[in-house]
Amino acid sequence: MSAIVSIIMGSRSDWPTMSEAVQVMDQLGVAYETHVVSAHRTPERLLEFAQGADKRGIKVIIAGAGGSAHLPGMVAALTHLPVVAVPVSSKHLKGMDSLMSIVQMPRGVAVATQAIGEAGAYNAGLMASQMLAIADDKLEKRIQQWRQAQTDSVPWSVTDDSE
Amino acid sequence: MSAIVSIIMGSRSDWPTMSEAVQVMDQLGVAYETHVVSAHRTPERLLEFAQGADKRGIKVIIAGAGGSAHLPGMVAALTHLPVVAVPVSSKHLKGMDSLMSIVQMPRGVAVATQAIGEAGAYNAGLMASQMLAIADDKLEKRIQQWRQAQTDSVPWSVTDDSE
Amino acid sequence: MSAIVSIIMGSRSDWPTMSEAVQVMDQLGVAYETHVVSAHRTPERLLEFAQGADKRGIKVIIAGAGGSAHLPGMVAALTHLPVVAVPVSSKHLKGMDSLMSIVQMPRGVAVATQAIGEAGAYNAGLMASQMLAIADDKLEKRIQQWRQAQTDSVPWSVTDDSE
Amino acid sequence: MSAIVSIIMGSRSDWPTMSEAVQVMDQLGVAYETHVVSAHRTPERLLEFAQGADKRGIKVIIAGAGGSAHLPGMVAALTHLPVVAVPVSSKHLKGMDSLMSIVQMPRGVAVATQAIGEAGAYNAGLMASQMLAIADDKLEKRIQQWRQAQTDSVPWSVTDDSE
Amino acid sequence: MSAIVSIIMGSRSDWPTMSEAVQVMDQLGVAYETHVVSAHRTPERLLEFAQGADKRGIKVIIAGAGGSAHLPGMVAALTHLPVVAVPVSSKHLKGMDSLMSIVQMPRGVAVATQAIGEAGAYNAGLMASQMLAIADDKLEKRIQQWRQAQTDSVPWSVTDDSE
Amino acid sequence: MSAIVSIIMGSRSDWPTMSEAVQVMDQLGVAYETHVVSAHRTPERLLEFAQGADKRGIKVIIAGAGGSAHLPGMVAALTHLPVVAVPVSSKHLKGMDSLMSIVQMPRGVAVATQAIGEAGAYNAGLMASQMLAIADDKLEKRIQQWRQAQTDSVPWSVTDDSE
Amino acid sequence: MSAIVSIIMGSRSDWPTMSEAVQVMDQLGVAYETHVVSAHRTPERLLEFAQGADKRGIKVIIAGAGGSAHLPGMVAALTHLPVVAVPVSSKHLKGMDSLMSIVQMPRGVAVATQAIGEAGAYNAGLMASQMLAIADDKLEKRIQQWRQAQTDSVPWSVTDDSE
Amino acid sequence: MSAIVSIIMGSRSDWPTMSEAVQVMDQLGVAYETHVVSAHRTPERLLEFAQGADKRGIKVIIAGAGGSAHLPGMVAALTHLPVVAVPVSSKHLKGMDSLMSIVQMPRGVAVATQAIGEAGAYNAGLMASQMLAIADDKLEKRIQQWRQAQTDSVPWSVTDDSE
Repeated sequence: MSAIVSIIMGSRSDWPTMSEAVQVMDQLGVAYETHVVSAHRTPERLLEFAQGADKRGIKVIIAGAGGSAHLPGMVAALTHLPVVAVPVSSKHLKGMDSLMSIVQMPRGVAVATQAIGEAGAYNAGLMASQMLAIADDKLEKRIQQWRQAQTDSVPWSVTDDSE
Repeated sequence: MSAIVSIIMGSRSDWPTMSEAVQVMDQLGVAYETHVVSAHRTPERLLEFAQGADKRGIKVIIAGAGGSAHLPGMVAALTHLPVVAVPVSSKHLKGMDSLMSIVQMPRGVAVATQAIGEAGAYNAGLMASQMLAIADDKLEKRIQQWRQAQTDSVPWSVTDDSE
Repeated sequence: MSAIVSIIMGSRSDWPTMSEAVQVMDQLGVAYETHVVSAHRTPERLLEFAQGADKRGIKVIIAGAGGSAHLPGMVAALTHLPVVAVPVSSKHLKGMDSLMSIVQMPRGVAVATQAIGEAGAYNAGLMASQMLAIADDKLEKRIQQWRQAQTDSVPWSVTDDSE
Repeated sequence: MSAIVSIIMGSRSDWPTMSEAVQVMDQLGVAYETHVVSAHRTPERLLEFAQGADKRGIKVIIAGAGGSAHLPGMVAALTHLPVVAVPVSSKHLKGMDSLMSIVQMPRGVAVATQAIGEAGAYNAGLMASQMLAIADDKLEKRIQQWRQAQTDSVPWSVTDDSE
Repeated sequence: MSAIVSIIMGSRSDWPTMSEAVQVMDQLGVAYETHVVSAHRTPERLLEFAQGADKRGIKVIIAGAGGSAHLPGMVAALTHLPVVAVPVSSKHLKGMDSLMSIVQMPRGVAVATQAIGEAGAYNAGLMASQMLAIADDKLEKRIQQWRQAQTDSVPWSVTDDSE
Repeated sequence: MSAIVSIIMGSRSDWPTMSEAVQVMDQLGVAYETHVVSAHRTPERLLEFAQGADKRGIKVIIAGAGGSAHLPGMVAALTHLPVVAVPVSSKHLKGMDSLMSIVQMPRGVAVATQAIGEAGAYNAGLMASQMLAIADDKLEKRIQQWRQAQTDSVPWSVTDDSE
Repeated sequence: MSAIVSIIMGSRSDWPTMSEAVQVMDQLGVAYETHVVSAHRTPERLLEFAQGADKRGIKVIIAGAGGSAHLPGMVAALTHLPVVAVPVSSKHLKGMDSLMSIVQMPRGVAVATQAIGEAGAYNAGLMASQMLAIADDKLEKRIQQWRQAQTDSVPWSVTDDSE
Repeated sequence: MSAIVSIIMGSRSDWPTMSEAVQVMDQLGVAYETHVVSAHRTPERLLEFAQGADKRGIKVIIAGAGGSAHLPGMVAALTHLPVVAVPVSSKHLKGMDSLMSIVQMPRGVAVATQAIGEAGAYNAGLMASQMLAIADDKLEKRIQQWRQAQTDSVPWSVTDDSE
């Protein structure tokens, strides 16, 4: 099954965060690939990646980066595919810088920003799947079932593990 | 042409901001509807709206709200359709409260957050269109042409209007 | 003694924080119940809980949540009972996101927001008790005595434990 | 009808904000009084006010202040009555300073913080009424009717005034 | 030698921070006392302390508190003696709440705010000494010598300890 | 009467703010001078000013500056006289940058920071006077009377001007 | 005289801010060019511009942008020439987003960030000139004279225009 | 080889951060010196250092400081040499105070601000080298090679170390 979602990140150090996106896509049966693409250190790789993604069959891109996080916005500038963005937490400002860099995109180039850090990466996988499900009835069903299972797993008691 | 995108907002006072989303969808030929749904003042309307959207043929929901902005996240809790979220600017904190309320969603329920205010509303229309274009080749073409026109319209001179 | 205060939280992981609310109500002799209700993952449980609370004899609701913390505001949207809100601290933004999500409620739907984290949860139990004491002279007395004991327990010396 | 809610504020300049609290209590038929009490400029008036409120028949206190907003917390330190707090917006920091000063109360002395500014003042009147309704069935009814009217007044169309 | 500076703090847990103020006053030979005075839990002790300080011979008050830090401003409201204020760091917001609560005093009641945490407490001791030195030539001399020693102790090399 | 307080500011554009300091000192009968000293544009004037102030009979320095506000801290580095600091509001960040630059002084060099903007400038005049009153019984009396007048001027009614 | 500094900005709406950079370079006799280059709307123009600047004789690049301001960092990723960056103020967050996006660059790709807005743009022109003066004795002299004139122009009186 | 870059910092405790600047200059073959210069504790050393740097052959100054970080701006006030500034992280506010103090310089005195902490210090070394390379073809070559090596070292796989 060839990848239809491409997960990229600015550095290998983002992988512990971004690997959360993989979890949910594994559960939902969405095929993906993962790569390091640095907007700052490998700008030409970025260009090549972003402009070639569509032709390679990629339908949605998930991009995570921290600090002056330019990767999601620059990918969005270079392809018409929807880009889901993850602000990775940063050492000093805890991802507030990443979030500001990612979410405040100007009129005309959009990204789909998620929460800072692990929860955001997880939800990026989910949002990419929801986008794909617009035209994939089987995936839509799997998402609905997955959501129901999630709802069912929420306990009613705050402490009792036996329920 | 029946609406496939539903644009909702927490209050009529959000319309000057949210109307930007309409502009880009008009240009791209995406059919939409617009409604006021307040998470706080009309929670049952919210429930009915969110749970019925899929059946009515809606494919993507755009939700804008300000302050303690619960509308996008609550819609996302009630439907598997992708929700694009717009943090509307607020009187005192200028939308920082709206952004915090919207973007920091917990693991398992995702929204696609845009920038604060008008640019974010505009990009919400664009992101919804990009999602729909995943399985709509004609729309994909229109988006590509629209993007090219946008690129072509950027002047090279900072002041000369004649170029 | 059947519960008159209901303490709910968005996730079991909020319990270490929210358990502080229980401490003070135990001391003041106020009967309570505790449950997990997730605005995002169990929206229908939220609806059922909030709309049924009054009929079950609940007089005050304490709701705690973190990040995009929609639980307190959504409960307040669904019941006329007073809702005391606790912004639970979050991994990256340390509860500033929770506070913004909770406190900036729009005109017409109010919550009674407490401090971020443990102190806020503790004070939520106290505030709920104060509300109940408006019409409960015995509880009012117990609160006054509890306050006096608190005042008496503050040392005058910064270091000497013998006083 | 003698006042059962006392609305105090740190300065006459807070009145345009705090007058919003009066609106909702007028609609709900809750008797109130309004006074200027400055924690910083009239600390003895504060003491006298706070310690005498209970005896004068006051059941709930609403306190609004801006900047280093100490009034709500200090009133709460001096009486066991519930204190609803309004962070009034400030010239330079737009009420973020007021909010920080008010909401981050230490364990053992609680206030019920509302949103910054006018919406917060309005909701303070509502929250005070909700507290009183715990033991006042007629007021509870009026609040329920008021809430229903509020819900009914939310338009479905974003622009059409004729509905 | 009877105390001329009084160091007060809202809780014993502030002592590790506030003890820094003692260090510099010990070096400068300024007599001080230390006490716990909680604006919120012991408001009457606060009143008695602040109004009696002048008569007991106190010339400067140092007050430290965290979170909704009302102690310095309330002491300043109750005495004409200069109050040096220390925003103690807080668990979640790292003293930004303490700083906002302390520094944004309204026109007419002033405190002399120091940095957040230990450095601020240390400097509070120094600032109190500088105030006293306005009319104490011997203390002025000691401060000048102390400052010279501090200047002399700054190394020129970043790593070599032998200089 | 020769000046004993020197009020300096980084730019003439700070004068509308800093002139508030003059008001209160005029009322209290404290002699002052006012000058422009820019830490960045006139560093040698700063050096000369700060090192000569003591010899000219200055007892307290008030320094106001905005943005990267280095003036108060640098004056404090160059003289043992107490420095009262005013964070002047700034165009974009509204004085939050000024406050951060001024208040977070390192261990060993202290300033007495006031609120952002006009209220802070006013209180700087007051704090300088309070410092001088430590050893000036007549000034102490005038401050006590001024404080009493301030207290007396606070109205009890929020709207009635006739009281 | 062919341009050795290139001033680029993300949008023509940045010109009122960025034109400040021109003022100081005109005074210092540094030749420059000005162009609109949008990282998001014209990514290929950005690539061409950044990679060709060196060959065209450009020695320093000044780049200004607002919101998710990716232009300075992306130019720096594409050329070894020094890039001076100006965070242009933004509608809602007043340039705090622009600053976060620009200044928090990762290890290995640097920009020389200036203040938010007009002052930052002005200083960008100055910093570019200072860089060029490292190897241009005549420019160095002109900068020194310009600095002296700036120092001389600072008034000593806060109000008297006659000096 | 005599130093052409001077790296100064406000305290020895800044060395673990500032030592990053040395790494990159070692790789690029740029000669440097390192010293402690405290704006607050050694203002005369600051004056002497800044005014003498040019004559000693220094071409670029790198200055790092934390909290109320006045060192970079004050050095820039005292020399026409370009100053690269590093906001060192701080205990409580994590360098946000350092950044605000450094970057918001007023019109007429510029510094080249880098990111908070280690990455910023590293990039300071790089930016200083880029400035010097404007007129040093051999250094320019080394920087280009260094940049290429950096680009080449970015992995394509997120996990596989064998590539």
